[in-house]
Amino acid sequence: MSQEFDVVVIGAGPGGYVAAVRAAQLGFSVACIENWKNPKGELALGGTCLNVGCIPSKALLASSEEFEKINHHAAVHGIAVSGATIDLAKMHARKDGIVKKMTGGIEYLFKKNKITWLKGHGRFVGKQDAGYKIEVGGETTETVTARNVIIATGSKARHLPSLPVDNRIVSDNEGALTFDTVPAKLAVIGAGVIGLELGSVWRRLGADVTILEALPTFLAATDAAVAKEAEKQFKKQGLKINLGVQIGEVKTSDSGVSIAYTDRDGNAQTLDADRLIVSVGRVPNTDNLGLENIGLAPNERGFIDVDAHCKTSLPNVYAIGDVVRGPMLAHKAEDEAVAVAEIIAGQKPHIDYNCIPWVIYTSPEIAWVGKTEQQLKQEGREIKAGQFPFAANGRALGIDAPEGFVKVIADAKTDEILGVHIVSAGASDLIAEAVVAMEFKAASEDIARICHPHPSLSEVVREAALAADKRAINM
Amino acid sequence: MSQEFDVVVIGAGPGGYVAAVRAAQLGFSVACIENWKNPKGELALGGTCLNVGCIPSKALLASSEEFEKINHHAAVHGIAVSGATIDLAKMHARKDGIVKKMTGGIEYLFKKNKITWLKGHGRFVGKQDAGYKIEVGGETTETVTARNVIIATGSKARHLPSLPVDNRIVSDNEGALTFDTVPAKLAVIGAGVIGLELGSVWRRLGADVTILEALPTFLAATDAAVAKEAEKQFKKQGLKINLGVQIGEVKTSDSGVSIAYTDRDGNAQTLDADRLIVSVGRVPNTDNLGLENIGLAPNERGFIDVDAHCKTSLPNVYAIGDVVRGPMLAHKAEDEAVAVAEIIAGQKPHIDYNCIPWVIYTSPEIAWVGKTEQQLKQEGREIKAGQFPFAANGRALGIDAPEGFVKVIADAKTDEILGVHIVSAGASDLIAEAVVAMEFKAASEDIARICHPHPSLSEVVREAALAADKRAINM
Repeated sequence: MSQEFDVVVIGAGPGGYVAAVRAAQLGFSVACIENWKNPKGELALGGTCLNVGCIPSKALLASSEEFEKINHHAAVHGIAVSGATIDLAKMHARKDGIVKKMTGGIEYLFKKNKITWLKGHGRFVGKQDAGYKIEVGGETTETVTARNVIIATGSKARHLPSLPVDNRIVSDNEGALTFDTVPAKLAVIGAGVIGLELGSVWRRLGADVTILEALPTFLAATDAAVAKEAEKQFKKQGLKINLGVQIGEVKTSDSGVSIAYTDRDGNAQTLDADRLIVSVGRVPNTDNLGLENIGLAPNERGFIDVDAHCKTSLPNVYAIGDVVRGPMLAHKAEDEAVAVAEIIAGQKPHIDYNCIPWVIYTSPEIAWVGKTEQQLKQEGREIKAGQFPFAANGRALGIDAPEGFVKVIADAKTDEILGVHIVSAGASDLIAEAVVAMEFKAASEDIARICHPHPSLSEVVREAALAADKRAINM
Repeated sequence: MSQEFDVVVIGAGPGGYVAAVRAAQLGFSVACIENWKNPKGELALGGTCLNVGCIPSKALLASSEEFEKINHHAAVHGIAVSGATIDLAKMHARKDGIVKKMTGGIEYLFKKNKITWLKGHGRFVGKQDAGYKIEVGGETTETVTARNVIIATGSKARHLPSLPVDNRIVSDNEGALTFDTVPAKLAVIGAGVIGLELGSVWRRLGADVTILEALPTFLAATDAAVAKEAEKQFKKQGLKINLGVQIGEVKTSDSGVSIAYTDRDGNAQTLDADRLIVSVGRVPNTDNLGLENIGLAPNERGFIDVDAHCKTSLPNVYAIGDVVRGPMLAHKAEDEAVAVAEIIAGQKPHIDYNCIPWVIYTSPEIAWVGKTEQQLKQEGREIKAGQFPFAANGRALGIDAPEGFVKVIADAKTDEILGVHIVSAGASDLIAEAVVAMEFKAASEDIARICHPHPSLSEVVREAALAADKRAINM
């Protein structure tokens, strides 16, 4: 007899596992279907984010940043170090340990919350009364019945046509987390978040990194002032960034790769490298879900259409995270996860998508919430903006991180904060106060009047808010 | 003929210089009296905070933290380093450079805002019509007339009776910033902010540090759970902390110091050390200000009495910062500075002293805002509290900083946040969102529902808020 659950979640990434936990907290019987296997062949919860995304990349970013600091910034403090070396096997083992701890943590959460982990690939096979039949194909195949279904199948790396990813010479985000040697020359196609973060990791460890980007504008979704500052800093660090290129033929061999491309001036160029990371976006995972068996079809871009509350066109079927519209961000998936579980429980949660922060974990970090100046101008909004540099902040100088600034954009008349844009050390945490402020519909005057500890990086947020009213104190 | 000013500020520390800048922004003619000389004998703006307080200590904390990381935490990442050494002269030169940059920045602000820097010691000499006569004794002596006066003279280190501070063997905060060698054995009297921060600096650089504290409770003003965690971490790092001691005779010689004390169990003990830092609090600077000439007297504790708006008993005489009631914190002085300038301009600013954050820049850092659990219980408030550890946060694991937690305390019935207490890496910046939330009278539910970037340390603030309602996701 098939098992029945109040809620079945397909996928155990940050969207799926959080949905399962919240649904269980709310008293539902919950199962979560997950078939991910780590390189050792072990089934693991956590999806892309925990296994081959946010978590391992942050571990490598931290290790490589320490290495870079020792090699290039210790001297500033009067510290002399001879011959620092890094053992990549140990670096990767640390990263793997963190991943194991985090994914193991989800297994613990599942047990604690009495969530059934269905180990296999989930696939709709039909509808029965008020429930959906889902076949779980793993070591054995079973079929379960779900009164509510949350599709949280996430996304996978987009690959280039006719360029197979072997995760050795040509890698996507997964392979780029496991290089066993530092490539002397590393090519990256795509100057998005993943390309910049992983390009930074390997540059810090010694690679000569060149990034090729099709778009003519660097970080086009980012506030233009921030993008400009970031590009300046990354280039200063030695990242080569070529914008507006057109990729031609990519030839691979056992020892490397040769990329033909046309540069922004129309000249034919070739980039030879030992390895290549392809980071040209991600595509939603909607293959082989049996959607057709319940009368659901992905849209032309492969996403599942949902309304503002993550409801699909079918009753009691929801979809969240990377598989639906909106930014492909783990915390966006988590918030949708909680919201959907609460909707199923009859609550009325609401997500303000304008208050979902964005982060790029480069050095300096980039973080923002709300709209960019270029977006607001395009909308014809009358705005005022204030900007304040970390170079005038005592804490930033103390920690040798004077790069970057905070920019606060507010409505010219009401003073409501419309966007906060940060490029600096610690931006990923500094953005939190801006998100809170925007959720409370704060004015820039509010931030300007709220006490910030001295000395701290957060003072720069306040000074930028003051600058929006042309009354920064320390400028 | 004596110069007349709308506003004369006595003291150019973070209270005084900010008051001067804000008053000038509001259109007043402003002078600021400052007589501070740096060790080179040069007059410098910025007061204790910039010259011998917050700013140089943060520079040394950063340098020593880098040294500690290289020596003890690089291996975690697989980084091997042989024989790291630190050149104290270079370390101090970096610190001095930051101080010079920041204090020079204030000189620039004074010029830009047309603030007259009166170089000398300020002293009231009398009252004339609606103005106050202030004598400025420097290379020459002049007398100026002020329609409004802001006393921002700050504080100085309290010394122990009959133990002269030579800033060589026996130091206060000033001397402890300039040791030219790392003492093999360092004694610290007073386990407050300064003792812990400077004790940490020299421990990281190699000193065997013992702190003696008269109070039986560690960091008594801090939430007890935070104090307990901090004490555990500091002891693990090798700081020896002896609480509840009674200091007896302190003998000094050219080569060291011998401190007789009674330990908490009543046993006579002796601590021998190469150097001693005395950090037993600070006393307000009200000496020789000529207060008696205008009919103002400090209270029995040496502070100038003021009301909630920093008004003294005399018309148009205000006092701010360390010289008045409230916490001796630079940002508290800054907020009072802005408020007083605006009051003089007829505005109605307000400071909520409950929303002034506290920070201790140890490792892990300690930061809080609002009330502690012990304060609230003493007040008989019904509360609920949520706590979440950084050990369950992917970013904290990534940067190898799993120590500590966030604790959110809310009213049991209304859910209003009453206090947020953090002990962790980056606590000094993480506290900012809690301050914003409390200024908006947020409920813990608000923080729980606001999106926080993943992975980031700030997620722990949200999880602690969720934990206050017993619905943390990742615990």
